[in-house]
Parts: sequence; structure tokens; C-alpha cells
Amino acid sequence: MKVPEELINFLKSEDDFLILTHVSPDADGIGSSVALSFLLDSLGKRSSLADKETVPLYCEFLPGKERFTTLQNIAASRGSVNAFGAVILVDCNSYRRVFTRDNIGWIEGFRGRAAVIDHHETDNPDGQIRWIVPEAPATGVMIYHLLNEFSVPITPPIATNLYAAIALDTGNFRYENTSPEVFAIASDLTRRGAQPHIIYRHLYELWPEGRFRLFVKVLQTLDINGRIGFIAITKEMFEETGTTAEDTESFVSFPRMMRDIQISVLLREIDERHFKVSLRSKGGFNVARVAEAFGGGGHANAAGCTVKADIVTAKALLHAKIEEMGGHQ
Amino acid sequence: MKVPEELINFLKSEDDFLILTHVSPDADGIGSSVALSFLLDSLGKRSSLADKETVPLYCEFLPGKERFTTLQNIAASRGSVNAFGAVILVDCNSYRRVFTRDNIGWIEGFRGRAAVIDHHETDNPDGQIRWIVPEAPATGVMIYHLLNEFSVPITPPIATNLYAAIALDTGNFRYENTSPEVFAIASDLTRRGAQPHIIYRHLYELWPEGRFRLFVKVLQTLDINGRIGFIAITKEMFEETGTTAEDTESFVSFPRMMRDIQISVLLREIDERHFKVSLRSKGGFNVARVAEAFGGGGHANAAGCTVKADIVTAKALLHAKIEEMGGHQ
Repeated sequence: MKVPEELINFLKSEDDFLILTHVSPDADGIGSSVALSFLLDSLGKRSSLADKETVPLYCEFLPGKERFTTLQNIAASRGSVNAFGAVILVDCNSYRRVFTRDNIGWIEGFRGRAAVIDHHETDNPDGQIRWIVPEAPATGVMIYHLLNEFSVPITPPIATNLYAAIALDTGNFRYENTSPEVFAIASDLTRRGAQPHIIYRHLYELWPEGRFRLFVKVLQTLDINGRIGFIAITKEMFEETGTTAEDTESFVSFPRMMRDIQISVLLREIDERHFKVSLRSKGGFNVARVAEAFGGGGHANAAGCTVKADIVTAKALLHAKIEEMGGHQ
Repeated sequence: MKVPEELINFLKSEDDFLILTHVSPDADGIGSSVALSFLLDSLGKRSSLADKETVPLYCEFLPGKERFTTLQNIAASRGSVNAFGAVILVDCNSYRRVFTRDNIGWIEGFRGRAAVIDHHETDNPDGQIRWIVPEAPATGVMIYHLLNEFSVPITPPIATNLYAAIALDTGNFRYENTSPEVFAIASDLTRRGAQPHIIYRHLYELWPEGRFRLFVKVLQTLDINGRIGFIAITKEMFEETGTTAEDTESFVSFPRMMRDIQISVLLREIDERHFKVSLRSKGGFNVARVAEAFGGGGHANAAGCTVKADIVTAKALLHAKIEEMGGHQ
């Protein structure tokens, strides 16, 4: 993986960086950003890290995560964004993925240079310097190459951040993006101090009890129709377990554990007769096409949309659409 | 990892091998045995693979698994074990892990040389040539080194068998045994044709529907007492879902997903007032000591025993013992 010359020059020539990652930040966004700020440290540069939200619970173990603050705090302490010499978007490529309609004006007033380091597909990226590699399994992989490019030693804190970033975006080495290179980097990071079993525990074994109780309730709604496994979450379940939509992360993938389930669908009640729908495919059937038919979108194996109907009708509509598209053999 | 000279000479000098793995074979036992037989192929040697049971469902995708047959078939087709020139125990180190009281006499009549290739701790191994490496994360890692020692090319079928072996025994790279070397080998095997996402699907996403329905029932029994999470399985649940004890594999680890659960306990009803107990610890508390107190045993993080009492009393006894041993802070 070749790091663009202009990005290298940009990092060398600027001095005071604002590093931003996307809303609902994950371990790839947080870990990659923190590792990048460690890199800038060793170049003798100043960097600030900000995001709309606070660092999620499961990322709190990442060494250096305390460097993150909120956009609100940054704006309050530094005033204009032009107080910074440069901006870097990490694990996203447009300001719309970081800001809301209410505060995007702040960043749009930026007159300096902005760079993008990301592995997501894009239509219309922001920034003048763009390093976007959709084939990269994680932004963490790109930051790993960047560190090597600058010959910055990978310390245990850097190794932990990058390992967490890569582990999350490969589903702990179970998704199709788990390449020989991913394993080679994981080997190097583990040699340099990342602890796989500890990081796994933080990423996947820190459910609050309420989340687990919600999980049990949701699994009880399992409704199998041919090769499709439906599960559902009502607002009542959130109330009963003291949980929120954030606690439903990864639930949709559980029905996929069944041999004969090819497509897994989670319906989450937003309002009466209104559901947020998440779709997962084991491969072989493109769920993005189904989501698109309902005005949503996503990838071939993971997509989402909303459906306005009661639960029985919503399932029937989704089932009919999947069948129509040939997914129900 | 150094392969013993005498094992190398043994493989070179013998011609007709019987390869055996343990009862309730897993992907490390099956995958390592099949890869070893591919190695013997390329040395121009004959090998037969046998086990007490048939290959488990989730290993049926392994290329070459059809080389496995049952001990019964082997005895029927070859008669005396002395029809073989040599025996190799793989992923186990004593005949008692392969045979039962009824048929162990057959192997005990063997007059040739036997070798052991295993990563389990042992008190009293069988065989004259013993390559036992308890630090090895999987027997598959040892076979990988053996292949390199003989300069046998790692073909895609060999890579798939070894990757499955290593993925299973490291919990798909989440257990403490996930070392830099494990990742380096995974990288090499993936480069040589192993497909991580496909292998993951076979190892972990092939639950029959009944197993999933049993899983949902079992999770509903969750009973939290301090840092201990109890779940339970009754004989009735097996009947209702058309499942057996084999379908409960890995259930015990699910309560560990909760942040505040340090010890996870599964009670499976064997008979009225008689439970098989599985214990798992997140580390920090040694569950083997608890199991030993009830006449069982195991490792620090995974142990088992049986308790004769009704379910309420059984949980109370286990809770009291854990508390006594300091695990309930």
C-alpha cells in the first residue's frame, strides 16, 4: 500500500492538526485517530482529536482515547476552526459524516488544507488531499502503513489502538476482508504489545446486563420464513430493560448462526407502524438491493432501510421483496 | 518450534500408518490428522485415519475428511492392528482418549512403534515417540512446522485443514493463546488458499434450527448472583427442541459477554437432581479449583464437574464454593 506523496508532505509541512472521525465512532475511527495523533507526536506536531459524541464505552480501554473531546468543546476552546493549521478526516471522507446541519457551518468556514484517510467508498469526498482505499480492510491498516512510511516505532499503545481498529472492522478476523496482510499486521502488532484476548474482551464482552436481557427478549421473537430469519425489537423492550438503540449493535447477525438461514432481518420499532430494518446476508444474495427498494442502502452483505407498516405487514413486504429478487430459494 | 529428530526418522522409515485422534473429535483433531495424512502422501507413504465417531457436522467441509473412518471399520477391514506398520496419535496422547474399555484391547495388542503429536498436558502418555508441546496453541501449529520441516508444499486443502484447526483452538483468535506466531501462520495459510470467512462460517454458523431454539430457551434461564451468571438446561428443553447435549457446545460462554459477569456456569440436567456443570472464568479466578471441590477438574478458565442436588441447591452450593474461594467480590 503506497502512501500518497502529497499526504506525507502535508503531514510534514503543517503543524497544528485537527483530527476528526465520524458520528457514532467505532474502534476503527477512534483507534486510527489516536494512533495517527501518536504519529504526529513523534513528528513533533500538535494534534487535537474531536468527534460529535464521546468515545463509546467499549473503546474506553484504548490508551490515548482521552485525547478525544467533543466538537462542542473544540469550538469553545479554540473558537474558529481556522485556529488550526490543518484538518484530517479519519475513517470517513465527508464533513457530513462528522457534523450535523446545525454545526457544519463551522468546518465549512475552514480556509486551510484538509486531508482524508479512509477506506469507505465515496461519491463526493471533502478535503484537498485524499487517501481513500476502499480495498483496505480497515483505516487502521492504512495508519499502520503510514507509521512505517515515517519509520515511527510502533509502541504498545499504538499497537493496541491499531489492533482494535483492525479487529473490529474484520469482525475479529471473520469477515471476507480478512486477508493474508491483515494477519501479517496482526502478528506484528501482537509482537509489539497488542493483547488479542484482552482487546477481544473489550470489543465484545462488555455488555451491560440490560443489553443482555434485551438480547434474550429479541431472540425470543425469532420468526423463520424459509431462508429468512426475522427478529424484532419493540419500544417496550427498551423500556423493560433500560436500554437504547445503541445496545442493539450486532444483534442482527445472530440468526445467521443457523445453517439454513441465508438472510437475517432485524426490525426495530421507531414509532407505531414504523420500523428501522437491518438486513444481513451470508453472501450469495445482495441485501443492499432489497434495502434500496425501500429507500435505504448499504453493502451486499449488510444493508438497512425503514418500513412504515405494522410488524406483520412489514415482514410480509420484506419477504415478498426478497422472494421477488430471488433470495428465497 | 523444533521437530524431534526421532519423529522425523519415524515418519521416514515407516510405511503404513494408522492415524488416530480423540473421541468427540474437533477441528484441531480432524484438521491436523488430515493435513498429516497429506504430508505422508507426499512422502509416498500409506496412511489410514480413524476415530471412534464420525467426523462432526461442522468439519464436513474439510477437504480430505472423507479419509476418516471409524475404529470399527478399520478393525473390520484390516483385522489386527499389527496389519499397520506404525500408529500416530494426533491431538491426544493416550489410547484412553481414543478407545473405550470395550475396544482398547485391540490397540494394546500393537507391537509396532507408536508416535504422539499433541499440545495437551499429560501425565502418562502412550507411544514410544512423543512430541508433546503444551505451549502450542493447537496441534495444527505443530503439523504446520512438520510440513515445513519436510519442505512439503502447503496446498489449499492442507491450508484449509490447518487454518480450521488453529482457528478452532484459538476461539477464532480470541483466546489468550493467540500469539504473534499464530497470526503469522494464519497469514501464510490464508496466502496459500485458506478462506477465513468461509471457514468461520463452517465452524460457527452452522447451527441447526433446533439448536438455536434451545439456545434461546437456555438464555431465558439466566440467573445472576453477584459476578456469577448461571444458565440451565433441562431434559425437557432437549425434547422440545429435538436436540442433544452435543448441541450445547459453547452455550456456557455467552453470559461472559456481560461486563459484570466474571464466572459463567451452565447446569445441564442429566437426571433428576443430577447436573453436569460447566464453568468458565474471564480470568482472575480459577474455576478448576471449584470443579475439583466437586470431584471434577479442568483448566483455570474452563472446568467441569457434576452436582447431585436440585437446581436451586446446586446453584447455592456452587455459589457458596466460589464465594469461599474468593471469586465473588
